[in-house]
Amino acid sequence: MGMKKIRIGISGYGNLGRGVELAVRQCPDMELVGIFTRRPPETVKPADKTVKVMHIDQAESMRDRIDVMILCGGSATDLPEQGPYLAKLFNTVDSFDTHAKIPAYFESMDEAAGSSGLISIISVGWDPGLFSINRMMAEAVLPQGENYTFWGKGVSQGHSDAIRRIDGVRDAKQYTIPIQQAVDKVRSGMSPELSTRDKHFRDCYVVLEEGADPARIEEQIKTMPNYFADYETRVTFITEEELKREHSAMPHGGFVIRSGKTGEDNENTSIIEFSLRLDSNPEFTASVLTAYARAAWRMQQEGQTGARTVFDVPPAYLSPKSAAELRKELL
Amino acid sequence: MGMKKIRIGISGYGNLGRGVELAVRQCPDMELVGIFTRRPPETVKPADKTVKVMHIDQAESMRDRIDVMILCGGSATDLPEQGPYLAKLFNTVDSFDTHAKIPAYFESMDEAAGSSGLISIISVGWDPGLFSINRMMAEAVLPQGENYTFWGKGVSQGHSDAIRRIDGVRDAKQYTIPIQQAVDKVRSGMSPELSTRDKHFRDCYVVLEEGADPARIEEQIKTMPNYFADYETRVTFITEEELKREHSAMPHGGFVIRSGKTGEDNENTSIIEFSLRLDSNPEFTASVLTAYARAAWRMQQEGQTGARTVFDVPPAYLSPKSAAELRKELL
Repeated sequence: MGMKKIRIGISGYGNLGRGVELAVRQCPDMELVGIFTRRPPETVKPADKTVKVMHIDQAESMRDRIDVMILCGGSATDLPEQGPYLAKLFNTVDSFDTHAKIPAYFESMDEAAGSSGLISIISVGWDPGLFSINRMMAEAVLPQGENYTFWGKGVSQGHSDAIRRIDGVRDAKQYTIPIQQAVDKVRSGMSPELSTRDKHFRDCYVVLEEGADPARIEEQIKTMPNYFADYETRVTFITEEELKREHSAMPHGGFVIRSGKTGEDNENTSIIEFSLRLDSNPEFTASVLTAYARAAWRMQQEGQTGARTVFDVPPAYLSPKSAAELRKELL
Repeated sequence: MGMKKIRIGISGYGNLGRGVELAVRQCPDMELVGIFTRRPPETVKPADKTVKVMHIDQAESMRDRIDVMILCGGSATDLPEQGPYLAKLFNTVDSFDTHAKIPAYFESMDEAAGSSGLISIISVGWDPGLFSINRMMAEAVLPQGENYTFWGKGVSQGHSDAIRRIDGVRDAKQYTIPIQQAVDKVRSGMSPELSTRDKHFRDCYVVLEEGADPARIEEQIKTMPNYFADYETRVTFITEEELKREHSAMPHGGFVIRSGKTGEDNENTSIIEFSLRLDSNPEFTASVLTAYARAAWRMQQEGQTGARTVFDVPPAYLSPKSAAELRKELL
């Protein structure tokens, strides 16, 4: 039992799925059983050529051979449909990140997993995920205070896609950049009120289609509701070669800061800060998903069933070490 | 049930006990039932004069009126003795921090609490405590990497006491200060090997007894094994008035950094950093203990018994909010 490896499946093989494949390699207590895809399996090229790639329709037949399926599809269309289907067949972990829809998604996953005696940990990654834990714990420890979340510097897939949908745009990358003055104010313990515009700056690199009008496109970007209208935005037009050369990495990061007060008259300030600096956003997110796969497996082995979030998982369940080892080495 | 407050007792009323009294005030779901002390109760002056102060021998008679006893004694002599005694009577939370003795202390608390059907969460605070969680989770997420812990700038009680024990010293304060160059190297993702001397600097402010020899005392401090011999140490002699005026606050803090690698050839770096900046070390530690008192109560209500550490506690148990509220507001 102690030596039996946790058998992992990956559903969806984009950047995140590939990241999970690489993360599982770093875990001696896990083995990758297979990758499931909606594409023709022969078109998917895993990092390790010996890994089996199957069509997602074959997943059900692998039910007894996979302990945890890590769902690497997107939150917009993939997960709402695949999530509940796969949660009936496997313990799952996913990175569902459409904030407003989390309560509804939780309910549907809870029903699916619960009805099969399985566990599904949803919304795992860094935000939602590790950032959420830090927001939550910092608030619990310092009830009198304010939470601040800053993202970046990093590529926002959603904002890059929004620019790409504009007529005349061939390709684009958008960086979300925290505004240093705002960060400094928060770190100083001032608990400032910050508007959307005060916190982040949006830096866009755009490749035009031939003949497209840069002035019109810049205007369309800067006035786009929800995505850009509320922010200071810079638009730089570059060539396709430049975009590939300078902007193909996927860095990200950010920080969660709580500024709280203690003492008889709230005279003392405590600043709790959690920060990430990531060369590869998808690889790091994948590493978090992989650690939570270990937790999902343990929780289900204990007899727990239904949907969970990172808030419900004892930290110890993420580690391959025993409770006694953790107390001795890391407490 | 939803409205019933968690009834808290405090055992030991130094800086930490006082901090717990103030932290409980910030928690509308808790009430402070009483403070227990080994001193004559009438000599103890709580921040709130209406709070009942009792001798520790009366604790047993309050068994049915307290849900969680927060142990605010020291790790050297108080907790090893009081801990197991009180763990037989109450759910407890403590800040036991003698690293080498944690495994033995855990066993004795596990037996005491377990035999009475109660929960004891040990070694709660920021280190051990929140720092431990971050070391542990960061290692689980990024198995290929290194953990670094830096403390300070802050007052080390143990080192200040060690100086005070030297013949000819009237009073002293010692600040532990992280060495910025080492911190910068770690943050850059270099994963340096750092010796004790590379990481922290020790800054001492000493008040002499009349007629004491400063050269002899400076030498004794700088060569003291374990405490100072392995560090760069600075000794400054000051007056008693200056010590009171400039060095009576109890700030502390520090950071846990993990520098880890992901990718096919470990080509991508991720830096996870958790940091604290605290005006009042005891008040912050008390705030952490108080949040974990909530968790202890919930876990025991669920039927769990025995000793636990921060590694065993699901984050959600620290918050007064419901699971649905947490998902909606903080995930």
